[in-house]
This record gives sequence, C-alpha cells and structure tokens, in this order.
Amino acid sequence: MLRIMKILILNGPNLNLTGEREKEIYGNVSFKDYLETLRKLFPEFTINYFQSNIEGEIINRLQQATNEVNAVILNAGGYTHTSVAIGDTVKAIDIPVVEVHLSNILAREEFRHHSFIAPHCVGSVFGFGLDSYRIAISYFRY
Amino acid sequence: MLRIMKILILNGPNLNLTGEREKEIYGNVSFKDYLETLRKLFPEFTINYFQSNIEGEIINRLQQATNEVNAVILNAGGYTHTSVAIGDTVKAIDIPVVEVHLSNILAREEFRHHSFIAPHCVGSVFGFGLDSYRIAISYFRY
Amino acid sequence: MLRIMKILILNGPNLNLTGEREKEIYGNVSFKDYLETLRKLFPEFTINYFQSNIEGEIINRLQQATNEVNAVILNAGGYTHTSVAIGDTVKAIDIPVVEVHLSNILAREEFRHHSFIAPHCVGSVFGFGLDSYRIAISYFRY
Amino acid sequence: MLRIMKILILNGPNLNLTGEREKEIYGNVSFKDYLETLRKLFPEFTINYFQSNIEGEIINRLQQATNEVNAVILNAGGYTHTSVAIGDTVKAIDIPVVEVHLSNILAREEFRHHSFIAPHCVGSVFGFGLDSYRIAISYFRY
Amino acid sequence: MLRIMKILILNGPNLNLTGEREKEIYGNVSFKDYLETLRKLFPEFTINYFQSNIEGEIINRLQQATNEVNAVILNAGGYTHTSVAIGDTVKAIDIPVVEVHLSNILAREEFRHHSFIAPHCVGSVFGFGLDSYRIAISYFRY
Amino acid sequence: MLRIMKILILNGPNLNLTGEREKEIYGNVSFKDYLETLRKLFPEFTINYFQSNIEGEIINRLQQATNEVNAVILNAGGYTHTSVAIGDTVKAIDIPVVEVHLSNILAREEFRHHSFIAPHCVGSVFGFGLDSYRIAISYFRY
Amino acid sequence: MLRIMKILILNGPNLNLTGEREKEIYGNVSFKDYLETLRKLFPEFTINYFQSNIEGEIINRLQQATNEVNAVILNAGGYTHTSVAIGDTVKAIDIPVVEVHLSNILAREEFRHHSFIAPHCVGSVFGFGLDSYRIAISYFRY
Amino acid sequence: MLRIMKILILNGPNLNLTGEREKEIYGNVSFKDYLETLRKLFPEFTINYFQSNIEGEIINRLQQATNEVNAVILNAGGYTHTSVAIGDTVKAIDIPVVEVHLSNILAREEFRHHSFIAPHCVGSVFGFGLDSYRIAISYFRY
Amino acid sequence: MLRIMKILILNGPNLNLTGEREKEIYGNVSFKDYLETLRKLFPEFTINYFQSNIEGEIINRLQQATNEVNAVILNAGGYTHTSVAIGDTVKAIDIPVVEVHLSNILAREEFRHHSFIAPHCVGSVFGFGLDSYRIAISYFRY
Amino acid sequence: MLRIMKILILNGPNLNLTGEREKEIYGNVSFKDYLETLRKLFPEFTINYFQSNIEGEIINRLQQATNEVNAVILNAGGYTHTSVAIGDTVKAIDIPVVEVHLSNILAREEFRHHSFIAPHCVGSVFGFGLDSYRIAISYFRY
Amino acid sequence: MLRIMKILILNGPNLNLTGEREKEIYGNVSFKDYLETLRKLFPEFTINYFQSNIEGEIINRLQQATNEVNAVILNAGGYTHTSVAIGDTVKAIDIPVVEVHLSNILAREEFRHHSFIAPHCVGSVFGFGLDSYRIAISYFRY
Amino acid sequence: MLRIMKILILNGPNLNLTGEREKEIYGNVSFKDYLETLRKLFPEFTINYFQSNIEGEIINRLQQATNEVNAVILNAGGYTHTSVAIGDTVKAIDIPVVEVHLSNILAREEFRHHSFIAPHCVGSVFGFGLDSYRIAISYFRY
Repeated sequence: MLRIMKILILNGPNLNLTGEREKEIYGNVSFKDYLETLRKLFPEFTINYFQSNIEGEIINRLQQATNEVNAVILNAGGYTHTSVAIGDTVKAIDIPVVEVHLSNILAREEFRHHSFIAPHCVGSVFGFGLDSYRIAISYFRY
Repeated sequence: MLRIMKILILNGPNLNLTGEREKEIYGNVSFKDYLETLRKLFPEFTINYFQSNIEGEIINRLQQATNEVNAVILNAGGYTHTSVAIGDTVKAIDIPVVEVHLSNILAREEFRHHSFIAPHCVGSVFGFGLDSYRIAISYFRY
Repeated sequence: MLRIMKILILNGPNLNLTGEREKEIYGNVSFKDYLETLRKLFPEFTINYFQSNIEGEIINRLQQATNEVNAVILNAGGYTHTSVAIGDTVKAIDIPVVEVHLSNILAREEFRHHSFIAPHCVGSVFGFGLDSYRIAISYFRY
Repeated sequence: MLRIMKILILNGPNLNLTGEREKEIYGNVSFKDYLETLRKLFPEFTINYFQSNIEGEIINRLQQATNEVNAVILNAGGYTHTSVAIGDTVKAIDIPVVEVHLSNILAREEFRHHSFIAPHCVGSVFGFGLDSYRIAISYFRY
Repeated sequence: MLRIMKILILNGPNLNLTGEREKEIYGNVSFKDYLETLRKLFPEFTINYFQSNIEGEIINRLQQATNEVNAVILNAGGYTHTSVAIGDTVKAIDIPVVEVHLSNILAREEFRHHSFIAPHCVGSVFGFGLDSYRIAISYFRY
Repeated sequence: MLRIMKILILNGPNLNLTGEREKEIYGNVSFKDYLETLRKLFPEFTINYFQSNIEGEIINRLQQATNEVNAVILNAGGYTHTSVAIGDTVKAIDIPVVEVHLSNILAREEFRHHSFIAPHCVGSVFGFGLDSYRIAISYFRY
Repeated sequence: MLRIMKILILNGPNLNLTGEREKEIYGNVSFKDYLETLRKLFPEFTINYFQSNIEGEIINRLQQATNEVNAVILNAGGYTHTSVAIGDTVKAIDIPVVEVHLSNILAREEFRHHSFIAPHCVGSVFGFGLDSYRIAISYFRY
Repeated sequence: MLRIMKILILNGPNLNLTGEREKEIYGNVSFKDYLETLRKLFPEFTINYFQSNIEGEIINRLQQATNEVNAVILNAGGYTHTSVAIGDTVKAIDIPVVEVHLSNILAREEFRHHSFIAPHCVGSVFGFGLDSYRIAISYFRY
Repeated sequence: MLRIMKILILNGPNLNLTGEREKEIYGNVSFKDYLETLRKLFPEFTINYFQSNIEGEIINRLQQATNEVNAVILNAGGYTHTSVAIGDTVKAIDIPVVEVHLSNILAREEFRHHSFIAPHCVGSVFGFGLDSYRIAISYFRY
Repeated sequence: MLRIMKILILNGPNLNLTGEREKEIYGNVSFKDYLETLRKLFPEFTINYFQSNIEGEIINRLQQATNEVNAVILNAGGYTHTSVAIGDTVKAIDIPVVEVHLSNILAREEFRHHSFIAPHCVGSVFGFGLDSYRIAISYFRY
Repeated sequence: MLRIMKILILNGPNLNLTGEREKEIYGNVSFKDYLETLRKLFPEFTINYFQSNIEGEIINRLQQATNEVNAVILNAGGYTHTSVAIGDTVKAIDIPVVEVHLSNILAREEFRHHSFIAPHCVGSVFGFGLDSYRIAISYFRY
Repeated sequence: MLRIMKILILNGPNLNLTGEREKEIYGNVSFKDYLETLRKLFPEFTINYFQSNIEGEIINRLQQATNEVNAVILNAGGYTHTSVAIGDTVKAIDIPVVEVHLSNILAREEFRHHSFIAPHCVGSVFGFGLDSYRIAISYFRY
C-alpha cells in the first residue's frame, strides 16, 4: 500500500445537485456538508475537492492530479458509461484511482452496466449512497 | 397545464450553424432571425436563448434554468444520442422540458434513433425543421 | 407550406378507448369530445375522423385520403412498431402525414422505440397526451 | 378468485383449421366438436366462442368482451408474437384473460418465444394440445 | 410436377397502387392491365386474382384456395416480413405456393431481408418488377 | 393419455420460502399446507414432494423419478433459465414432465423469458401463483 | 428489356456434384445433362457454362463475361453468403446478372439468409431445384 | 443505518483456494488467516464464515442467515454471473447483503460484467483484493 | 510431455445415464463397462473415476485432483456451457485437463457452442461418442 | 468402425509454415518431418498428404478423396471459420472426416469459436499442437 | 487536389500527454517537439496547432477552421468513437479533414473500431505513431 | 525505421478493374499507369506488383514476400472483411505490411467496418483513392 497523504475527490456531472434534488435517491445532505464529515473522519488525509459538469475539465483535472495528490476518488457520473476519453486518462496517469457511485450501477438501466473507467481503476465501490466515498477512502487507511 | 411565462430555448452542438451550412437540410434562416419570428408569434412569453457546443455547459444551463424560467425547449443536437449526463440533468430538474429536433431522428441513421433525453421530457417534436420550435412552444399556449 | 384545408385524423387500435380506460395515462376525455375541442380551436380547417382496430382498414383509408384531404394526422397506435405495410402506404401517398402519439414512445418499452412510419412522415409529435393532436395540427396553421 | 359465469374463448388465425390440417400436430378433432366437450365438462359456465383470422377483429371482440363475459381464454395464434396492438387491448380491459397455446411456444422457433400478450394475462397454459383449453378453464373452477 | 390448371394470384397491401404511385420503382402499368397480359401469355391456365390490404383476409383467401385452385402466386407485400400468421397458413395448406416480390427484398432495408413465408413456399422470385409474376408462373408450364 | 397414479411435485431453489417471504408475490400459504389442499383435491393420485436448492439434487431426483412415479410437476425456479443440465435430464427420462411457475416468466425480466426445460416438457403452466400446480395436475385427470 | 443472345451460366462450389450426391435434395440429373435440356428449351440463346470451386476464378470469369455474353445466371453456392469480393464484381460489371439457388436459402440455416450478391443483381430465383435455372432464363425471353 | 452486530462472510466457489493458487492475482494470504485479521480490525462485530463450492448450499446458508446474523458479505465467485437462483435468494431475504469481489469484474472478460446479485444488494465493492472485505465491512462501522 | 501415471476421468451431469437412455445417441454400453475397456487398453495408467450431477462436487473433486492424479479427463456435460465456476477451477489447478464430449457440441444447439472450460484445457476432443475418452487418453501415451 | 486403410491429411492455409514461423505456438517441427513420424506410428495406414492455401483447391481435393481414401483428417485453418463452401463439401461426401486444429479454437478470438465444418464431421480434436493429428488418427485404430 | 497552404492540426483528449506517459505506446517525443519536425519537413505549409480535452472546444475550433485554414488533420482521440457531435461538425464544414490516429484503432478494443468521424473525412491514417501526422500531411503535397 | 529497398504492392480482388469500371469511385487511371507514377515518385525503391482475385494466391505471395522484399503494401479488397486466413498470414510473416484501401471502409456498409488484416499491420491508410498507395509508401521514406 502506498503512503497516501493527499486525496482528490473528483465529481462529475450533476453531482453538485446532491442534497438538492431527487433526495429520495441521494439523501438530503449536500456534498459540501458531507465533505466536512469526511475530513473529520479521516484527519490523517488532506482531501481536495473538484466538481465539473464538463467532461474535458474532468480530464484536465485528472491530468493535473498526478502533480497534486497521491490518489483520486472518482465519481464520473453519467460520463462513466460513455467516456472513452476519461477512461484513457485514468489509464495514462500514475496515481491510484478508485471509482465510486452513489447508486449501484449494475442494478439500474442496462446502459449503466458498462464502465469505461473501471478497467483502469484500483477498485470500485457502488451503491452505498454518500457512504460510498467514506468506504472508498477507507481503502487507503490502514 | 402550468402557467408558463418564461421559456428557455437551449440549443446544443452545431445548431449555431443553422442557416449557414447544409441549407438543403436546415433551411437558410439563421437561428437568430428565427428567434425574432418566434418572439413575435408568442408575445405572451419571454423567450430566452442559449447555445453551446459544450455538453457540460448545456448541463450547467439546464441546472440554472429552474431558477430562471418556467419551461425549456431543448434541442441537444448530437448529444441527444450519447449523453447520459444531460438525460440525468433533465430528470433531476423540476421544470417541464420539451425535446425538439429539426430533422426526424427516427428517419436517419440507426444511432440517432435512441434519445437519452426523451424519457425525461414532457414530450418530443421531431422533423419539422425550424418549425419544430414553434410547434413545441404552442404546447404551452392555450 | 401547402395551403391545407381538409385534415384527416386517423387513429389506430385501442384509441377508441381513450377516456374510458387507463385514464391515468390517457386522461378522461373521450376522443369524440376532444374532436369537438379541436374543431373549435382550428375553425379554418375541416377535420375528418376515422378510427379502426384493423391494420388493413388504416391502409385503405390512407390510400383514399389522397383524394379526400390535404393532410393526415396519423396515430397508428400499436401498429406503429410492427407495420411495415402502413409505413409503405405513408411512403406511397402524396399528401403530408404527421405522426402523433399520446405517450412518449421513446420513454416506454424497447419495442416501442422503433417506428416504421416515422421515416415517411413530415414530422412526429410524441408524449403530450391528447394535446399531441393540437400541437401537430398547429404545424399547418401559419 | 372472481365468481366467473360467462367465459369467451377467443381464437386467432388458422385455429379454424384445427382437426383439418397438420393433424399430427393438432389432433383430428375440430374445434367445434371440442367446444361441445368443454361445455359438458364445465356445465357451470356459459362458454362463448369467436374465431377470426383478422387481428383487428380480435381486438374488437376483446373490447366488447368486458360487457359480455367475466373472463377470456385467448389463443392469439401467430399474432401472439407480433401484435403489440392485441397486447395493448388485453392490458386495457378489466376482465381476466388467460393465454393458451396448443403447442409449447418455448419449444418452437425462436420468434415464437416472445409473447406480447403474456405480460398482461393472469397466466399462460402452453403445449397440451386442445387440452390446454380445458386446463385453462379449470383455473376458474374451484 | 403437378398438373396445374387454376392459379390464384394473391396480392397483399399496397399492391393495388401498382402503376399509380412510385412509378420509378413499380413501373406505370396497373396490375389489372398486367393481369390481362399474363392471361394471354399463359392461355393454358385459369388465373384468378385477389388483392387485400387486410392481413386476415389474405389468410382467409389462402385457406379457401385449397378448394379453388391448384397453386398460388403470393406477394404478401409488407406482411412478408412481419406476419407469422400468414406463414402458418402457407405451411398448413396443401397446394404449392410461390413467393413473389416486385423488388429484390435482399437488396433493400434490413427488415425486409427476412421472410416468414419463404420457408413454406415451393420457391421464391424476387426483383424483376411485374415480370416476377410471369417468371413465377413459368414454373408451372412445362 | 397415460393412466397416471403417482405424481412427483419437484420444486427448485427458494420455493421453500413460499408463504414466508415476498408474500405480495407468492401469497401467504406455505407449500406444505398447499400440498395438503392438492392431495384433497386429487384423491385419486398419490402426490410425492421434493424440494432442493441444489441443482444436482434436482437432477438426481428426476433420474430416480422414472422408477418411482408416473409423472412429474417441475418448478425449477431460477434454474429454469440457466440449467442446460436439468433440461438434458428432462429430455433423457421417459415419464411426462409438466413445467410450472408461480409467476408468468414471460412477463418478468428478459433473462426469465427463456426456459431450458420447456422444450422437453409435455406442456407449461405459468403465472397463476400456487394455483399453477392445481391447474397442471388437472391435465392428468380426465 | 435488353436483347439478350448469349448467356453464361456460372456455377460455384459443389454444384459439380449435382446429380451425384445428396440426390434427395438436388435430384439425380447431372448439371451437364440438364444443360442440354436448357439449350433445347431456349434455342434462341447461346448458353455458355462454367463451374469452379475457386472463389477467385468465379470473379475472373465474371470479369471476362462482359466481353463474352449479354447476361449471367449466377449460382455462387456457398460463396453467396460469405463473398464480399464476388458481390463487388457483380456490382462492377455492366451486364445483367440473375441470382439462382437450387434450394430456398431463406428456408435454411440462418447464415444462408444473407446474400452479398443479391443487392447487385437484376433479380433472384430460389428454391425450385434445377428448375430455378429455367425460370431465371425465362426472364430474358419475351 | 442498522445496528449491526453479527456478520456472515459467505464465500462461493474456488475462494477456498485463496493464498494457495494464482497468487499473483489473489495474494499469498489464506482466507483463514485473513479472517483473523478482519476479526481484529473489527472487534465490535462477530464475524461468521462459510464457504462452499455448491450453489445450492450458498442458497441454503443465505436463507438461514436471516435467523443468524444482521448482515452478509457475499462473494459468490463464478456464480455471480450465472446464478439467477442466488439472486432470487438475496432478493427474498430481509437482512442487508453487500457484494464483494477480489478482482474488478468490470475489468475482466465480458461474461463477468453482469451480476445477478448486485441488483438486490445494498452495495458492491470490487477489485481491492482481500481488502475488498475490509472495505465492505467498514460500511457497517460508524 | 509429462510422465503421466494416474488419470482421473471426471464426468458431469447425466453421464451416469450412458447406456441406459437415449441409446441412439450414446450407445448401449454403460460407462462402468466402458471403463473396464479403457483400463485394459491403457494398462500403463491408473484410471480413477468420479461422476456427479452436482456442479460444486465437480469443483471439489477437481480441487482434490491435484493431490491425487497427474491428469484429468473432464466431461462436464451440460455445465460446460454455463459454469463460469468450473472454468475458474480448471484455470486454478496445476495438472493438465483434457475436455471431452460424447457429441460434437459445435454441431448441436447454439447454446452448446460455447465452453467455459475449453480456454483452460490442454485440448478438447468432441463427437466420437464413448471413443472420445479413448482418444483423449491416447494423448498421454507416447 | 469402418476398416480404414488409406487416410488423407488435408491441410489448409498457412499450415505449410508449421515449424518455420510462430514457433512458440506451433513448435519447430515442420509438417513434412512430422508426417514421417505419423507414418511410423501408424504403419497399418497409408497416409496421403495435401496442403493448399486456396479454398477451392481444398474443395477439389475433398471431392476427389471419396475415390482415393477411406477417411480424411481435415485442418482447414482459417477457412474453418468462414467457409460455408468447404462445410457443404464435407456434408456432401461419403467418407468420414475428422476435424483437427493445432490450437484450441474455443480458447482464442471470438471469431474462431464457430466452425462451419464441425457439424458435418465425425468428431473434432483441438488444441494439442501437432499431436492433434496423432490423436485424431488414433480414432481409426482399434 | 486543392492548393493547400494552411493546415490546422487539431488534437483531442490526452494527446497533450504524448511523450510524457505510456511512452512504450506513444514514443518519448512530445507533440510540441514533433510539430517542429513537421514544420521543417513541410516548409511549404503553415501548420497551426490546437489541442483540447473538451469535446465542445474541438467543435468550436473546427467551425472556426473554415475561415482560418485550407485543411484539417484531426485526431479526436477518445471522442472519435463516441462523438456524434464532432462527426456532425466535420460533415457541416467545407474544408477537407483527414482523420489520424497514433495507434491502429481497428487492432484495439472493439469499442474503438467505430469512428463517427471517418464517414465525413477525405481519408484516414491509423497506426504509425506520430508518423501518422507526417503521412497524412503528405497527402496534400504533390 | 527499417532501411527499406524493395516494396511489394499486393492487390486483391477487382483491383484489376481500377480505371475501367465505376470510375466515379476509383478514378479513370489504370493501376498499371499509376504504378509508373509511383515508381517515378519513389526512385529510391524497387516496387514490385502482384494482383490476384484468388484469396489463396494472395496468401502464397505474402508467404514468398519475406524472401523477396522488405515491405508490403496490401490492399486485400473484399477479402479484407472476410479472410481470417490472410490475416493469419500477415501475422505469421516478419516483414512490415501496410494496409491500404481506395475508399474509406469505415464510411461504407457495416460489413466493411471490420478488417481481419488491420490488427497485424504496421498501420492503415484508407479513403484517398489511388493516392492511398502514395501516402502509404511515404511512410518508408525519411
């Protein structure tokens, strides 16, 4: 296990709506608030955060991440299922990336069963709601 | 029927070329000029307009739209067939969205027969050229 | 735009049940009553009406329509997805045909995503309930 | 269980040939004769009978059936696998419909494995030859 | 070879439009006129004719044909590709059926490549325009 | 019809939960209790019963059944859709097997539409809940 | 209709076995003998003949045929379903080609339902055994 | 979050080989030893363990688990991708089940991309090797 | 070539019926008797034998085999086409496994064309009836 | 078992490269040399040999083989997966044909999993390298 | 051939990493340095350069390109396989576009075999590493 | 880069028709004449030429090429999409092979989108007409 100190949580499209819309699915905690909870639960890590609805900006930030953090928690949202390009970036960079989803993508529509990102990740955590992030980060704590 | 007063027409990739290229398909009226026609035909509505070639900016504007207008007329262009992410946004927001296409997507290439956006829209209007917008807005007039 | 004066609304199987069954989907107005509303909304048009549950009678009436009306509003119901033969008729006749559906067929079962009729129509209007007819006819009003 | 008194047996295309052709498959009893047997076996029920080779007439009769009988035994023959429209009718009407086939459709050609009717029926009975009708009606006897 | 004396030409949907519409495809001779030509070319045969746009009427006539003629020339038009029921009828009757199409169905849209009727026919003749009928009948002349 | 005297009801995985879980689907009668009802309804038959969650034990019991009973009522549960091996056993043994399901498998998920067992059965009865067993056994009563 | 005088019958793989093997399918007349029959039936035509089991030799002969004959009757045998290259040749040459098969390819294995050659032929004649050739040539007689 | 006290780790086929074979994939720690590590890391939980290569025994144990533990960590191994029956059991029982895999199944052969179990689980953890179990259990610690 | 001394013949579901049922396919020699023939033909080998209808017991025995024999002749019967789990076991163990089938699986139903086991075997022998075992063992004799 | 005396080994495309190229796959023995080994191992048989890269020449030689040998060992190389025509020839001739491959075609690319030849062969031997030939011939020795 | 003077090289996502990551695939020359080499090799052309990870910015630049250069060399990276929108832009603009890829996309994962861009390009050059650009530009030199 | 001195241009089926047929696609220059142009443009190379319509002769020549030239420019025409065998040869030989097509195969019929040859080539050049050869050879000039 690498000695991880800095982690980037990178969220894709519509994840800025967490806690605001479709609360029956995503709960009523905003991601901003949840981030504070995470930082308290994992005081040994510096947790950076970035969210964008733009596919290419996610690619930009992933490319920068290699110089900035030791690991990435990536929830690419709807781009998970369609973005060859983000998958190529995850493959190209050196730091470990963990894939996260709020819902269990294998339990939803057929088109969400495929992930272009999973093949290049350390591992994947699906379906625990916001808890997916906590569980994913726990991979790096020993 | 909701009392609609403000409508956003939201156009996706390449629709800024309307009236300039492939005129045999799209006619030779620019969308800017057509917008004036629409505003005259529907004086009871305020019609806002936004166009972007960037998928994520369409998502951004759809998210803002809930605070800005009562309804959206959305022509997502080529993203219609590939964007899980825009479909997720349309599903997440509260205001009615009507899907519009210049051409009849069911009459074109196989890959255009699927719409990730349609399942979350009030309804869809396809194939009438620029008239598709006029017909779609007429849904809100009673 | 053609100068349209006579329009045939041609309804396929089970549309005679509108307003009687599955009201949560189709509303509780019978098509007969709705037809009166349409005739009042579009006094400049003569609106003929024909409904049949028999595929071949829809073909018969479409063939006659060329001598009888200037345009057809066609809701082929369940035959939309299975009838090569009706599609061939729409292709063969000269007058404009507009496809209409009460529900958004792209948002329902996979087998309803395909239309044998759409490729030969002027355009398609889906998903606005009975309003789909009003919206479709508005195409011919200028 | 509903108290059933009147049952309509509704047969689709080519079932008028029973007992006349392909006897190695369908036996050599005509449906008319078999109907008498059924009426004797189930004296507590009034059993009506209708057969048509025309898809739309099957739809017509299904729609009428709600005012005429308490249950329908439906063998839609070849239309089982192709008729979205009959499936829509079965879904729309209120009385219970039991699907019946002489042969086991899951044991024949691939295109017979799908039924547009099954999803809207109480249940299905396949493969017992003419006995399928007797078995299906026995559902209503208690 | 059977001694053939009476032949039924059985035409399906839209074939009554031959010579009237889409002349660039089907030529400008009406089927009525062409029938006269055929009768002159084959004076040794009695040639009956029936056309219907209704699938079930084609089934009805095929069932009757066994008592009426020695062979059938069947152009089921658009029903060729969708009608399990007509295929079942052709399989069930005893007299030889020859499948005919004006256009080469293997050279058109994918959905026309399949024929539910072909497996039960003596043979098939595709793509020679109205000549397909002449060529098919020549099978019975020796 | 064979003179049937002994019947084996053979139930596959999870059918031991009947009446205990998912009662909205399967009712609240346990299979043990239902078995008593069946034995009373069919006093002329000896009805044996076996349930196992293990695929191979179902095969074992089917193989034994030829020396033990005259007919089998088989509900293979989830193995219906995946077990080539059970299908092979049904094909190999001599006594008649009737396939039964509580729910209508053609009305559920796509992967339940296929049955490896159906092609080798006398017939199939689907969708009547526990009544499916009663209906299936009625096939053997004359 | 072109004035046809010279016709090449071009046979593909295994057609040299006609009359020798699988006689229950192909009859017991050798193609050589049948050719004499054809020449007598059509004295107004010069009928050349070529058979090869080698795909490329069929292409060679098709290319030469433009300088040698006015029309080709082509039975490409098993290459029909796999040879993009022969299809390209038929498309490239100027003289009319009629496709012929002894058996009805649409009634056999799935992989025989597709023809790479049909789209570029005048028409197709399937399923009449050796008679398919006679019927095909009759297209050129008027 | 439920107050969890007893957890069952349920391992499917070949997971008894962990630490013995294919060590480059699964590491060289046996599951028995790893279990001790887990028990030390989570002293607040009683962790039961069961492994079987037999599909039906996994079903048996899942059914018992409802009376025995508060939650299940399930690694169904190869049965994940083929067992409708285990999926049905997970759906039928009341206690939360978390799906775990050593490898990232979305990054391996196509046939491992589908899980019949995922749709009925609380969530899924894939690809972290033996760490997947630790991460999954951390879901229950707060 | 390894020096092979002990071989395990491992037979899957329904292979205990060899010589008893469907003799037209499998011959009328029981596997027990055939085993004696094999032992006489290959006196230099110790040939062990195990048959089970239970998938997991086949896995158990394959896992044990590494400590017991030098090679396995595996006929997994119907599990060949459905068992990811047995395929995983063959991959995990060190000794050579040869796949055997009585019938030619590539010549039967589509669902038998795939083998989850083949990719991990030394080689495969299909279609020679019981002789397949003799042929497979001859691989180890030099 | 036929009394076999003469065997033809018939090799398809690229098998003349055995022992020269891709030795890690095919070994470094040339087929010529291996043939000598085979002839010594099976002195009771006359073993003829033919190799061609031309599909049609393989067909020619198979057709001749019926007059020349008692059995054929056929490795059609890459044509195995694409040649309907060679499959037709194997079906048409009377003598037994055994299919052989050096590699296990079920363990390679998807397009190699299908064999047009297998359905018409006595049996198939895959994956033992050059040994596949020895094993296949052993079928004929008793 | 058009007289070309100004060329835009337009690179899509992750191509800014060339020479920095996955050097075994893409070599260790940065695109910036390679651009200098190209400018020296083709002194007769002005070569502009633009790279973006954002799909919509590639569309923006393609739209501008018509007023700026005479030809485009486009490597759309991962968007090649998913972007209907970029394909629409290439179709809409007037200047020639040549598609380029470093790797041979037909030799990689299935999802890279399709290009939405190719159908609208002059031609495509794949698989020569950075040399693909040099080769593509050589098209314009005469 | 290898020091290339001798190059073989190897053309497959129908490429001997270049300049003679379908000139709107392939231009009106014969390949013989074009070859002279190429030889003048690349005086530093000896350019050999071979064309055949026979798949196996292309294989023969590819095998010989290793002793004859340093590189091959291969346009396999229609065999590109169907020939597993030619693909195997390209993989087996040592010298670099560049794939060339006159038209852009990704822009034509679906069945031309796949190339069995591409995975084993250095690179591919598609769609520039005869210029494709010039562009491909320029790869070897430095």
